[in-house]
Amino acid sequence: MKWEENVRKCVPYVAGEQPNKKNMIKLNTNECPYPPAPGVVKAMQDMDYKALRLYPNSQVAPVVNALAEYYQVEPDQVFVGVGSDDVISMAFLTFFNGKEPILFPDVTYSFYDVWADLYRIPYKQIPLDENWHIRPEDYKIPNGGIIFPNPNAPTGLLEPLEKVEEIIRSNPDVVVMVDEAYIDFGGTSALPLLEKYDNLLIVQTFSKSRAMAGLRVGFCIGSKKLIQYLNDVKYSFNSYTMNLPSQALAVEAVRDDAYFKEVTGKIVKTRERVKKELTALGFTFPDSYANFVFASHKSVPAKDIFMALREADIYVRYWDKARINNSLRITIGTDEEMDCLIDFLKKYLANRAE
Amino acid sequence: MKWEENVRKCVPYVAGEQPNKKNMIKLNTNECPYPPAPGVVKAMQDMDYKALRLYPNSQVAPVVNALAEYYQVEPDQVFVGVGSDDVISMAFLTFFNGKEPILFPDVTYSFYDVWADLYRIPYKQIPLDENWHIRPEDYKIPNGGIIFPNPNAPTGLLEPLEKVEEIIRSNPDVVVMVDEAYIDFGGTSALPLLEKYDNLLIVQTFSKSRAMAGLRVGFCIGSKKLIQYLNDVKYSFNSYTMNLPSQALAVEAVRDDAYFKEVTGKIVKTRERVKKELTALGFTFPDSYANFVFASHKSVPAKDIFMALREADIYVRYWDKARINNSLRITIGTDEEMDCLIDFLKKYLANRAE
Repeated sequence: MKWEENVRKCVPYVAGEQPNKKNMIKLNTNECPYPPAPGVVKAMQDMDYKALRLYPNSQVAPVVNALAEYYQVEPDQVFVGVGSDDVISMAFLTFFNGKEPILFPDVTYSFYDVWADLYRIPYKQIPLDENWHIRPEDYKIPNGGIIFPNPNAPTGLLEPLEKVEEIIRSNPDVVVMVDEAYIDFGGTSALPLLEKYDNLLIVQTFSKSRAMAGLRVGFCIGSKKLIQYLNDVKYSFNSYTMNLPSQALAVEAVRDDAYFKEVTGKIVKTRERVKKELTALGFTFPDSYANFVFASHKSVPAKDIFMALREADIYVRYWDKARINNSLRITIGTDEEMDCLIDFLKKYLANRAE
Repeated sequence: MKWEENVRKCVPYVAGEQPNKKNMIKLNTNECPYPPAPGVVKAMQDMDYKALRLYPNSQVAPVVNALAEYYQVEPDQVFVGVGSDDVISMAFLTFFNGKEPILFPDVTYSFYDVWADLYRIPYKQIPLDENWHIRPEDYKIPNGGIIFPNPNAPTGLLEPLEKVEEIIRSNPDVVVMVDEAYIDFGGTSALPLLEKYDNLLIVQTFSKSRAMAGLRVGFCIGSKKLIQYLNDVKYSFNSYTMNLPSQALAVEAVRDDAYFKEVTGKIVKTRERVKKELTALGFTFPDSYANFVFASHKSVPAKDIFMALREADIYVRYWDKARINNSLRITIGTDEEMDCLIDFLKKYLANRAE
């Protein structure tokens, strides 16, 4: 058809599968194994369904204000979107309009190149070093902007704040985004650097540590100038992106700090135990600071283990892609779920060894 | 700052104000004056808040399937987004990538030029005729795509299906979008034309006739090919745009057809009565088929009436813009709300006449 000539063609991002089986163990999309804060239930029950007939608050003020208070910044330094994917997508569209390529690691969140393709942004993938670490010196070349996750995905590796700052300091003329989707599992946020750098944008999400992937809430914090530009694009895209239930429930998740710390603490504790058990079974992995572990076995190919786990209704994530095709990304679930995984692996690896 | 050179600058859309006063009468953003279908309350109460920890269905399958059944099309002909603004924004990004300008009326939904600017799409605004009607022959020039609302906003005028079809038939080489945000208040949808034209995209919303502006749900229906292209872009933007509450509640709104017809019927009845009363007061207006009336008074400037109404906490919409700066867009509220409006206008106009 001739009309197809004007169509923007792109190769979409492929998310981890979302099976929905009874008794399955779902460790493939880094969701939180615990429910959201108890205040969320009450907010849901108290929500006035009659108010659904009205447009929601377009500034997402209740959530913006709760986050500003929690992170001790001004409300006009906070932007809230429909998951951190919405926030990053909007930020790519807003900030990455230069002629030079934007930079991000070669092994990283696999949505970055998809957004770059969608918006026709030139990009260059910078290889991680042989231990899967970011080398700040690699980011001292001409570029149109930078994004990297810390901790990185799917490795889980955390870079120290000095390295993060070195990258920001070396790039004052472009926007630098730090994707902190997994920062709440033991990492140190770059938030204190905001005082020094007005070109720094820090992105976080409610989907992992705040147990609300189903609510679609993400946010970023930056200088007022950055947030203003982002809002201009957002209001040129859709005035009302965040619905009433999201606004009401997200506030409760932020307010209950004790629950937040309890949940993230439990996940970290489980992760550290699982690391020991995986090591005992012959796995190696980067030292994850996220809610997942990126593990390779010394003798059994990752793909084989992936398929065997899948057969047993235990879902983990595997990519058949250069450099990472012998690793499994395993989300940290409840202790019970991880026990099932370890038990299965013990038996499976013993059988393979026979 | 040098980093600002790479920033996409744009002039955002300005939505109608969202005041939140006790006892105000809000007739300025075309919301439904009645609450959503009763089934929505139950769905809200029954929703498993624990499931919020998991990602929602990325295909928005429950809503897509409900709409497909309701409108008697295949599920892969339906695309659901975060309000019709999200749907249209995504459709501009997907389909309007030609070199020729896209076409839309000069007096119309004021978001179209904002999207075109955001995505750097050339556009040409085609003047409505002197009675605010669309002339199909004006759309027979080289173009990169077409969009128009039917009924049009802010006039409320409905074009007959033959005129709509004439525009589509004359433009087989580009995508033609018909924005039917207000079709459920007495208009005839272009849906039956889908059988003949695979370049036709029909956009509708839950924000008006389905009383769910606060839930953010819009959708479009088109050929499988169009929907596939749209999905490729959507999955390149954000895999999970529609949260769990939206998916659960929207389905109930579609299912309760009796309630839907009752509500839209009541609004139409109120509108027709209000037309008579406005006429008696010296107003003229295009014959609206939407849930609003676009009225001018024979002697009192629209801006004066707007300010006076505002003082009395009655909010209607006014634009200080060429061609439409002597008209007020008045949303049809409940009978009681419209009685207050009419009473106020009676007194106000009598005072002015003294």
